[in-house]
Amino acid sequence: MTLIAQPLSMHFAKPLLLQSGKTIRAYSLSYETYGKLNAEKSNAVLVCHALNASHHVAGVYANESGAVEDKSTGWWDNMIGPGKTLDTNHFFVIGVNNLGSCFGSTGPMHINPDSEKEYGPDFPVVTVEDWVNSQALLLDQLGISQLAAVIGGSLGGMQALSWTLQYPNRVRHALIIASAPNLTAENIAFNEVARRAIVTDPEFHAGRFYDHGVVPKRGLRIARMIGHITYLSDDVMNAKFGRQLKNALGLGDDKKTLRAEYQYTTQEVEFQIESYLRYQGDKFAEYFDANTYLLITRALDYFDPARKFAGDLKQALSHAVAKFLLVSFTTDWRFAPNRSREIVKALLDNHRDVSYAEIDAPHGHDAFLLDDTRYLGIVHSYFDKILLENKNLETGNE
Amino acid sequence: MTLIAQPLSMHFAKPLLLQSGKTIRAYSLSYETYGKLNAEKSNAVLVCHALNASHHVAGVYANESGAVEDKSTGWWDNMIGPGKTLDTNHFFVIGVNNLGSCFGSTGPMHINPDSEKEYGPDFPVVTVEDWVNSQALLLDQLGISQLAAVIGGSLGGMQALSWTLQYPNRVRHALIIASAPNLTAENIAFNEVARRAIVTDPEFHAGRFYDHGVVPKRGLRIARMIGHITYLSDDVMNAKFGRQLKNALGLGDDKKTLRAEYQYTTQEVEFQIESYLRYQGDKFAEYFDANTYLLITRALDYFDPARKFAGDLKQALSHAVAKFLLVSFTTDWRFAPNRSREIVKALLDNHRDVSYAEIDAPHGHDAFLLDDTRYLGIVHSYFDKILLENKNLETGNE
Repeated sequence: MTLIAQPLSMHFAKPLLLQSGKTIRAYSLSYETYGKLNAEKSNAVLVCHALNASHHVAGVYANESGAVEDKSTGWWDNMIGPGKTLDTNHFFVIGVNNLGSCFGSTGPMHINPDSEKEYGPDFPVVTVEDWVNSQALLLDQLGISQLAAVIGGSLGGMQALSWTLQYPNRVRHALIIASAPNLTAENIAFNEVARRAIVTDPEFHAGRFYDHGVVPKRGLRIARMIGHITYLSDDVMNAKFGRQLKNALGLGDDKKTLRAEYQYTTQEVEFQIESYLRYQGDKFAEYFDANTYLLITRALDYFDPARKFAGDLKQALSHAVAKFLLVSFTTDWRFAPNRSREIVKALLDNHRDVSYAEIDAPHGHDAFLLDDTRYLGIVHSYFDKILLENKNLETGNE
Repeated sequence: MTLIAQPLSMHFAKPLLLQSGKTIRAYSLSYETYGKLNAEKSNAVLVCHALNASHHVAGVYANESGAVEDKSTGWWDNMIGPGKTLDTNHFFVIGVNNLGSCFGSTGPMHINPDSEKEYGPDFPVVTVEDWVNSQALLLDQLGISQLAAVIGGSLGGMQALSWTLQYPNRVRHALIIASAPNLTAENIAFNEVARRAIVTDPEFHAGRFYDHGVVPKRGLRIARMIGHITYLSDDVMNAKFGRQLKNALGLGDDKKTLRAEYQYTTQEVEFQIESYLRYQGDKFAEYFDANTYLLITRALDYFDPARKFAGDLKQALSHAVAKFLLVSFTTDWRFAPNRSREIVKALLDNHRDVSYAEIDAPHGHDAFLLDDTRYLGIVHSYFDKILLENKNLETGNE
């Protein structure tokens, strides 16, 4: 059965005070829900998204005549849906687009009520904590006082972790996948290069490119190419592309038709990996907002719950009361297993209930979005445990 | 005693046929020599350079009044000089600037005799093999028929390896440091992003920026920032910069004055690592030629001696008769130890004389340029062995 998703929007008239001290006067959040909230309102699961995703987590969109729209599948549809790992026959799943994003919720391309022009570079810096606060307000409106679980990968995992610290009593379980307690210097460095590529693109116009009818595509392409390299492992890149040359023009993708001879060129595509990266960069530059890219990478940079405890993660996590599942992937060098283990250690030091799985997968950071039976199996078992707990809650057995 | 270096230049009137099939009509090579060639001409050591280096390997430059020029120390001066690891009291050391570079030898910013304008994008693509051929012609002019050793790190190591294949009887020893038998897909990917940043900079003008009196500095900055990330290890970046915030304006570098509070900015420098990378990018954009960057990264991409043997490195290296020392560094993720081990394995499979040292150093790829007593000690011991062999050669004991 095809799950048809319906994007929704909720408007918030009350200003939101941000971590930076600034406020956002009025805003909307785009969201989607799948499955049914039970009478006890105990089966809600919030899905937090990473850099390049949205509230459209699962299912597909249908057009007015009911036909499925091409390429409209939700970004975590392999994990979430009826009968899937996170089973929407049992859980009420909520996807929310983060503030500052470019997929529906209020962001830099929307009108700033103060200036009556696009926010552009004036959109306030938003943090993981701000996103969690805004998600909590959305849940208030939906009448959900406590989540059965919050789940996210990468930057989404940071939000899941932050939920357990900002609203400890509103989350029973947190599933934190391919994430980290903060970015390393190297992570920040890659973000910074991507931001510099965007900001120094002459068509960025100090963030006011909307006024000029242009898009800083050069910068966005470079940013996306850098991103893609860090999402993949060295191994999977070698397996998928290796040193294969790009097909000559007019030849198919069949390996038998691969070129054998170098062209000796510095600017034309020579290797398959170059062609892949250019394609990814071009595609991204067509739809992603440059100001959003700056905001979201900065939210990543700033996240660091141990910061106000002089770097002591144990102390930072001492307020969390949720139960945890952490998952990491061996070849993920962007958010390496040792970063997940830091969180596990700090939780154990606080005597918290935490499960941890380190999956030996070849796909690097991207693995959290892919089908891997061991990975999906573990997440499935964990949601089964939550279901069982929920039944006990309902019958008063716990 | 300060070693005063003297840059020299040699002109070659005979056209050089390149691997691409093109020729370069006439060209000059900049070079320097240190120490004295002995009567037997058996003590010559050629030093091959990597991306951002030159013929100025050791010593300093003096101005006309004999005073040492500021910041004029050769790039491998910690390794090479009188009484040093590679001891110029015993060896005659030669540094050559590669064709296509921007430090003296004929390159894209020089006049193309065909057009009587700068070569720019018309400078032919040069390969590691082409560089080795041109170096061999220089040695011919210097009257050196056989090298005691050829040594290089990174791209320089590729040249050292190629010497043993192109001129097996002209090299007795090859020292290949922090190198690889070819680039991985990930290596090529980083080069490609850097090239795209340069080529898509509006001030690149399809490589003819000289005509416009501009330099594609935006692109060069991005290229250098990406490069720097890959030269360092995650560990050393965390140790050196971590998540430290950049000093507020007017404050010193003393850690006590580090800012404690986030500024909440997407475009200003927030973290120390950002400041470091921007500084490196700015510095590089002041002196490096954009067309040279394209040429040198392409030479890296193209190097692959196993290619014409269907990927069989053992077969590719079967023509080498030199003795080898390979050195790699544990935290080097650009040219990781397993890449050096591939070369070692292929040499052993050919029953060649090969020593291999894997140095547990924290500094990543950059380690090959740094002082590490174990690393320099091993290279020193190897050169001692070469000296002893040379004495035996002279006395006819071998």
